[in-house]
Amino acid sequence: MNEGYKDLGFAKLDIDRKARTGFAEVVFCEGKEEEYLVKIYKNLLEENGEVFGTRASIAQYEAVKAVIPEVSYDKTSRILKVSKADKILTGNIAVCTAGTADIPVAEEAAQTAEFFGGKVNRFYDIGVSGLHRLMAVKDQIAQANCVIAVAGMEGALASVLGGLVSNPVIGVPTSTGYGVGAGGKTALYAMLSTCANGVATVNIDNGYGAGYIATQINRLAEGKGSAE
Amino acid sequence: MNEGYKDLGFAKLDIDRKARTGFAEVVFCEGKEEEYLVKIYKNLLEENGEVFGTRASIAQYEAVKAVIPEVSYDKTSRILKVSKADKILTGNIAVCTAGTADIPVAEEAAQTAEFFGGKVNRFYDIGVSGLHRLMAVKDQIAQANCVIAVAGMEGALASVLGGLVSNPVIGVPTSTGYGVGAGGKTALYAMLSTCANGVATVNIDNGYGAGYIATQINRLAEGKGSAE
Amino acid sequence: MNEGYKDLGFAKLDIDRKARTGFAEVVFCEGKEEEYLVKIYKNLLEENGEVFGTRASIAQYEAVKAVIPEVSYDKTSRILKVSKADKILTGNIAVCTAGTADIPVAEEAAQTAEFFGGKVNRFYDIGVSGLHRLMAVKDQIAQANCVIAVAGMEGALASVLGGLVSNPVIGVPTSTGYGVGAGGKTALYAMLSTCANGVATVNIDNGYGAGYIATQINRLAEGKGSAE
Amino acid sequence: MNEGYKDLGFAKLDIDRKARTGFAEVVFCEGKEEEYLVKIYKNLLEENGEVFGTRASIAQYEAVKAVIPEVSYDKTSRILKVSKADKILTGNIAVCTAGTADIPVAEEAAQTAEFFGGKVNRFYDIGVSGLHRLMAVKDQIAQANCVIAVAGMEGALASVLGGLVSNPVIGVPTSTGYGVGAGGKTALYAMLSTCANGVATVNIDNGYGAGYIATQINRLAEGKGSAE
Amino acid sequence: MNEGYKDLGFAKLDIDRKARTGFAEVVFCEGKEEEYLVKIYKNLLEENGEVFGTRASIAQYEAVKAVIPEVSYDKTSRILKVSKADKILTGNIAVCTAGTADIPVAEEAAQTAEFFGGKVNRFYDIGVSGLHRLMAVKDQIAQANCVIAVAGMEGALASVLGGLVSNPVIGVPTSTGYGVGAGGKTALYAMLSTCANGVATVNIDNGYGAGYIATQINRLAEGKGSAE
Amino acid sequence: MNEGYKDLGFAKLDIDRKARTGFAEVVFCEGKEEEYLVKIYKNLLEENGEVFGTRASIAQYEAVKAVIPEVSYDKTSRILKVSKADKILTGNIAVCTAGTADIPVAEEAAQTAEFFGGKVNRFYDIGVSGLHRLMAVKDQIAQANCVIAVAGMEGALASVLGGLVSNPVIGVPTSTGYGVGAGGKTALYAMLSTCANGVATVNIDNGYGAGYIATQINRLAEGKGSAE
Amino acid sequence: MNEGYKDLGFAKLDIDRKARTGFAEVVFCEGKEEEYLVKIYKNLLEENGEVFGTRASIAQYEAVKAVIPEVSYDKTSRILKVSKADKILTGNIAVCTAGTADIPVAEEAAQTAEFFGGKVNRFYDIGVSGLHRLMAVKDQIAQANCVIAVAGMEGALASVLGGLVSNPVIGVPTSTGYGVGAGGKTALYAMLSTCANGVATVNIDNGYGAGYIATQINRLAEGKGSAE
Amino acid sequence: MNEGYKDLGFAKLDIDRKARTGFAEVVFCEGKEEEYLVKIYKNLLEENGEVFGTRASIAQYEAVKAVIPEVSYDKTSRILKVSKADKILTGNIAVCTAGTADIPVAEEAAQTAEFFGGKVNRFYDIGVSGLHRLMAVKDQIAQANCVIAVAGMEGALASVLGGLVSNPVIGVPTSTGYGVGAGGKTALYAMLSTCANGVATVNIDNGYGAGYIATQINRLAEGKGSAE
Repeated sequence: MNEGYKDLGFAKLDIDRKARTGFAEVVFCEGKEEEYLVKIYKNLLEENGEVFGTRASIAQYEAVKAVIPEVSYDKTSRILKVSKADKILTGNIAVCTAGTADIPVAEEAAQTAEFFGGKVNRFYDIGVSGLHRLMAVKDQIAQANCVIAVAGMEGALASVLGGLVSNPVIGVPTSTGYGVGAGGKTALYAMLSTCANGVATVNIDNGYGAGYIATQINRLAEGKGSAE
Repeated sequence: MNEGYKDLGFAKLDIDRKARTGFAEVVFCEGKEEEYLVKIYKNLLEENGEVFGTRASIAQYEAVKAVIPEVSYDKTSRILKVSKADKILTGNIAVCTAGTADIPVAEEAAQTAEFFGGKVNRFYDIGVSGLHRLMAVKDQIAQANCVIAVAGMEGALASVLGGLVSNPVIGVPTSTGYGVGAGGKTALYAMLSTCANGVATVNIDNGYGAGYIATQINRLAEGKGSAE
Repeated sequence: MNEGYKDLGFAKLDIDRKARTGFAEVVFCEGKEEEYLVKIYKNLLEENGEVFGTRASIAQYEAVKAVIPEVSYDKTSRILKVSKADKILTGNIAVCTAGTADIPVAEEAAQTAEFFGGKVNRFYDIGVSGLHRLMAVKDQIAQANCVIAVAGMEGALASVLGGLVSNPVIGVPTSTGYGVGAGGKTALYAMLSTCANGVATVNIDNGYGAGYIATQINRLAEGKGSAE
Repeated sequence: MNEGYKDLGFAKLDIDRKARTGFAEVVFCEGKEEEYLVKIYKNLLEENGEVFGTRASIAQYEAVKAVIPEVSYDKTSRILKVSKADKILTGNIAVCTAGTADIPVAEEAAQTAEFFGGKVNRFYDIGVSGLHRLMAVKDQIAQANCVIAVAGMEGALASVLGGLVSNPVIGVPTSTGYGVGAGGKTALYAMLSTCANGVATVNIDNGYGAGYIATQINRLAEGKGSAE
Repeated sequence: MNEGYKDLGFAKLDIDRKARTGFAEVVFCEGKEEEYLVKIYKNLLEENGEVFGTRASIAQYEAVKAVIPEVSYDKTSRILKVSKADKILTGNIAVCTAGTADIPVAEEAAQTAEFFGGKVNRFYDIGVSGLHRLMAVKDQIAQANCVIAVAGMEGALASVLGGLVSNPVIGVPTSTGYGVGAGGKTALYAMLSTCANGVATVNIDNGYGAGYIATQINRLAEGKGSAE
Repeated sequence: MNEGYKDLGFAKLDIDRKARTGFAEVVFCEGKEEEYLVKIYKNLLEENGEVFGTRASIAQYEAVKAVIPEVSYDKTSRILKVSKADKILTGNIAVCTAGTADIPVAEEAAQTAEFFGGKVNRFYDIGVSGLHRLMAVKDQIAQANCVIAVAGMEGALASVLGGLVSNPVIGVPTSTGYGVGAGGKTALYAMLSTCANGVATVNIDNGYGAGYIATQINRLAEGKGSAE
Repeated sequence: MNEGYKDLGFAKLDIDRKARTGFAEVVFCEGKEEEYLVKIYKNLLEENGEVFGTRASIAQYEAVKAVIPEVSYDKTSRILKVSKADKILTGNIAVCTAGTADIPVAEEAAQTAEFFGGKVNRFYDIGVSGLHRLMAVKDQIAQANCVIAVAGMEGALASVLGGLVSNPVIGVPTSTGYGVGAGGKTALYAMLSTCANGVATVNIDNGYGAGYIATQINRLAEGKGSAE
Repeated sequence: MNEGYKDLGFAKLDIDRKARTGFAEVVFCEGKEEEYLVKIYKNLLEENGEVFGTRASIAQYEAVKAVIPEVSYDKTSRILKVSKADKILTGNIAVCTAGTADIPVAEEAAQTAEFFGGKVNRFYDIGVSGLHRLMAVKDQIAQANCVIAVAGMEGALASVLGGLVSNPVIGVPTSTGYGVGAGGKTALYAMLSTCANGVATVNIDNGYGAGYIATQINRLAEGKGSAE
């Protein structure tokens, strides 16, 4: 284990990661067999005193809970975690959605940021087809160190926010939509093609990735470097 | 010729079209050999007393001018036409662009509408990265019978306008952009995936098509039916 | 609520919309949790005295019916609504389909237009592989203020209708088809590439969107402006 | 050479082909260096007493003409050939185009069929945006043993013809078009997704391929088998 | 009904088709509601004395059988039909497959051709990865008036057959395959890009379409014109 | 059967293959009906004394087991086989994965190579997001005659390995991933676009194909030619 | 001008932007006519005392220089600017490239960041095919507040850097590459599909966008908020 | 330079590569500025006593020749090199093409293999539309340690060769083709979807990559390990 990882046979846990990057390893639960998932959760919990996973199913939750009773599960975000009790949340991350269908991805982003110590403000259902809803909260959003814009369909929210705030906007395209908007590629391409400045984008439905980089930025803004 | 068309050998001019649809046949100049184009212009001018063509090159203009000295050419829109002197423009069509690069397509739309008798108001460079520019003219745009939204890149202008006005919005995606926005498909898909209501879309860079259907709507709104 | 919307926490209902655009907010039911959907229906019914939603499932219908017994559901169009009793339908909107598989989308379009006060005439199964069926009703279609052409596969109906009538044609590509025609993109691209004039297009399977813009055009043609 | 081909070093001429398939080898000129092209023409002319090539440039024509003075070149179809004088054309192949921009591909098809002994009737510029032009010649087209439908943009001509005639229709999508219609894929997909029966398709702009298979069908219909 | 079709309300049966094209209307069963399908089968059987449908499910078969006991169903091809007893099959159509997975599509083609009176010879599992299997039957295939090449994955069978026979080859790409070969587009594109002559292609999995056009060619070769 | 294949009616078993290529025919089980699969297994076992199939389901396993009790099935790789007892494994093939989700494809590759006599070393979960895990085993990997790099998502493992070893790397993209990485095309394209030398690629999820070609290379390196 | 923009007729300069976002408006020169570009440069220079444009051609440079002699042009980055003399660069932004072909995009990023006050360290030609080059500078890169990873082809550099540093990585895919890597989509998709954390991406070749958001992050890290 | 590379400022030459992989660094000339290219050639020649580059233009050749007079250039393959005089070529690599248009890519492959010490046999213009040409040389091809199959259009050559030989086949799709075959993706996908075994593929037009991996395999087969 002096290589900085713990070899479980089927997996090599990156025990070194927290020291290297300031963030402990996170589990992408989707598609992992329950037997293996339980082992990974147990090992990471033991190593780090807490453990955080995304895209967990209810069945996975129940399998892990049988072994780690203190694990908690959020149905909307599908996050499965054991979190330390004494977290102090700092800074300011704004998580915005265009519609209600974007909320699960937004919650994955928001709860990821919170797990890593960021303070999050939520602004949901403020899409551009009713601009007055966005205008009413624009000044609150502009105070965040980093803005996460979660939108499917035509993804215009990222561009409009990019034009209104001075700090970085992380666009998260969602797979919400149908026809040419199905699967999220239209929203992704729209965010990448934005006419606004200060917008970078993560993969479709990757709320976790947005929450992670927003945390990095928030930490830097709070003067702590990105490591906790 | 009792079939309703005039056979030039290489082409069958749709002489019947004005009676059938209220609009005379228009020439898509791009790619037509000059020799043939001149014949088409001569025949249509003779039949209709005026003639209108889109996507003409300067070389085509010069070839036609040699035979029809009264023909005029607009470099921005690439429209080549002989127009009757006594046109009365009626109604209200708003032609909007997101950026300056969208102006050539917007002019194709605007001048098409004007050729067919529509009154046009232009609102250029009002893209969503600087919403205050759009907000300043929003009330004027809302008075139009039909709004044409010309935008490349992420094409968000159509959605934002669709949320602000009560009459139909015709989206025209442009091929302005680069990377994933190159060629106009991102703007097209964004407009088709719009979260706003009352938006329909034409092909990429098809200013003519937008000007045409806007004229149909404008005529209906002015109580004249779509025929002049 | 002076911002023009009603905040339900998970959603911000656009109470302002009817005043702003002449159309009350419509619910896209697909994917909405029943608990939330019921709240949205209750609030919109209370605000507007009627409520209209598309793409509802039978389960959603039953959940809403438990709370709003007067709600009605149409299996073909999947529309779930409470409609005022005294609607007077005016104008003339023609809804056409190429085949029988296109009828669900066509009904979404037709019933949307009817909900918003438009008079609709239906012309189903008149696709181009048997032109005589189309020719037999061509003159009736041509009298409409706006024609909706619903077609999957190669989507040729929109082009053929565009060449025969003088008022606007709104193309609705459907996801009917297989092989390269699967999903509706072939029909969509064919409609966008049409050689006919006066055709604009909405997203694949977006009957609602076509019914909406056709209503706007129909209202303008009937001299009422687009607001009711 | 007892393997049935003649080895030129850089190429292996399929001398066997006429015996095997009833058609001598044809040269695809595009991209071939002039020096090599001249050698190929000389060898094939020597073997077969005639030679036929497609997609030749004017420069290639001039290079070949310097060595084979009797070679002829058609600018529209870009066909470069030496043809026997005593060809008797039999049967009936109808070559149709939607627009004037489709004529070069149609001529490649027509002249290929004629080179291989088929009698061709041409019906150009009969696209579906003006159905009366097509209806006026429909009965003549229906008499052909095989119909070639050449169309770009939305490619609807193949479907409409397929619904009107009883013999096979070979669709040739062309790269005519712009926006989503650019490059010919929309026309190709539309022809493949046709709701009509009796339509098969060749590659975009492949007039030669259509002329070839139409000749095979025409020969079979004329009772000669496909070999001359 | 003097328009040449029978209006069932939800559908317009093309009663005229047999006179117009030599082939009675065929039913595409997939996706049709059982109630409607039964009505269509009853009406077509009454009009034509036989009825033929493709892509039927077992449930559809049972629904039709309850009303039309003499209907028969083939699980492999999914064809549901009532066929006249006294069919005489003539001519020669070769139906070939690359692998065993292509047999369902091949059977749809073969049985379509047989329903319309063609004599079919089957050559299955002769793909190019074991050329000796193809070489062993090559001469028999070459005697057919028309060859149908059914292949998924890389679709090379159509090219190889095109180089070996002198009559037309109709390629049918199948959706057999995975990775970049999934869905059949690779096989389709390969067939369209063939370096062989005399190959035309129908949509992915469209066995019916291939059987239909092969019948047209077979009829012409047998000197009967395409009408029976 | 002197044609080198055994005709089962529905299939032509390539009995000749082992003599021709050094490898007996392998069965692609996916999608094969159980009845047919059993016949194929019986015939191949009889011909070759062993039989090997990929992508088998549990149901297929049970059907074959009922007739061939000695058949064995591996749930991870989905390989269904009867293997000779006395295999001697030689050479050195390294099978590497980026993550744990890539293990099923890697096992298909590894067990294929082992069935054909190759000695395999496994290096799993050494993806580039934690380079230290890869660096710790780099020297062992470099000793292999051939390296198989199995990776989904961005597929960077193939490039990094290609830069570190001197023998051939066979990249196997997997369909692991979501958003733009879904389906494996991103990993495939990344491997094909590699900036490293000595990397060739097989189809997405094609562990079998990689195991096969690695065996060919391993045999050559062990001085036996590719035939056993 | 109280709307916060200056209307030049053809363009509406966003004079308000510096106050709103902390960054003055930047000019995207590509495709702008020289006459208009000169006016834009003059007006922005007058408003802000400096002016910065990207993707300028040499011809545009010469046109602007004729009117603004102090303008400077960098051939590699194609940046055309007038910059204030007394800029103090602060913080730490690392700009890395995989190959030499990525340098023009990297310079656009680096010089953008420098124009807006960021201190930049450059690490060029450290792609993953020769990992030792990257390892030699890894510790210097890790000290940056933000890392920009510029790479074409398979774009693996962003993933590898994401796994090695603790601060945000902004990926910039470049259009360097050929075959499936042409145009930059493979690099883009690879970066979006990254298995590493803390990576967000901008559009293909969008060095400017990366330099902009890196500046925002760098300013936050330096405790100044994003506004200068 | 103890990091194993030589830093030229704009580039880091991988001096370590020959020791690490058995192959010296090769220059991808396309797009490199002449000034830089000359420096790279000079440095590599100095380090290795020879230098090899691909995709060089004539202008680049002339620039390098001015400084390194002994450099040689091959117009067909576009290879620019200084090669040691005393190369002994060993082993057996077969380079095959489907058509004459594939020869430039084939020569890039062949000359790469020869530069690295492999003996090459060329088999050009043996595509599947005339199988007898391929059959005549099949036995010679089968003797090679590795077969390179270069083909555009439908790329069937790789599958047919894969079924005929027992050693590895490296497929090289070429961008030869038009319509759906344009750009080489159809050939690439066909090769990846091959029904044959023992085929791996490199990027479109990547003759160099195929020559490189074929050399690795050839060296292993000749018992020398992959290092020279």
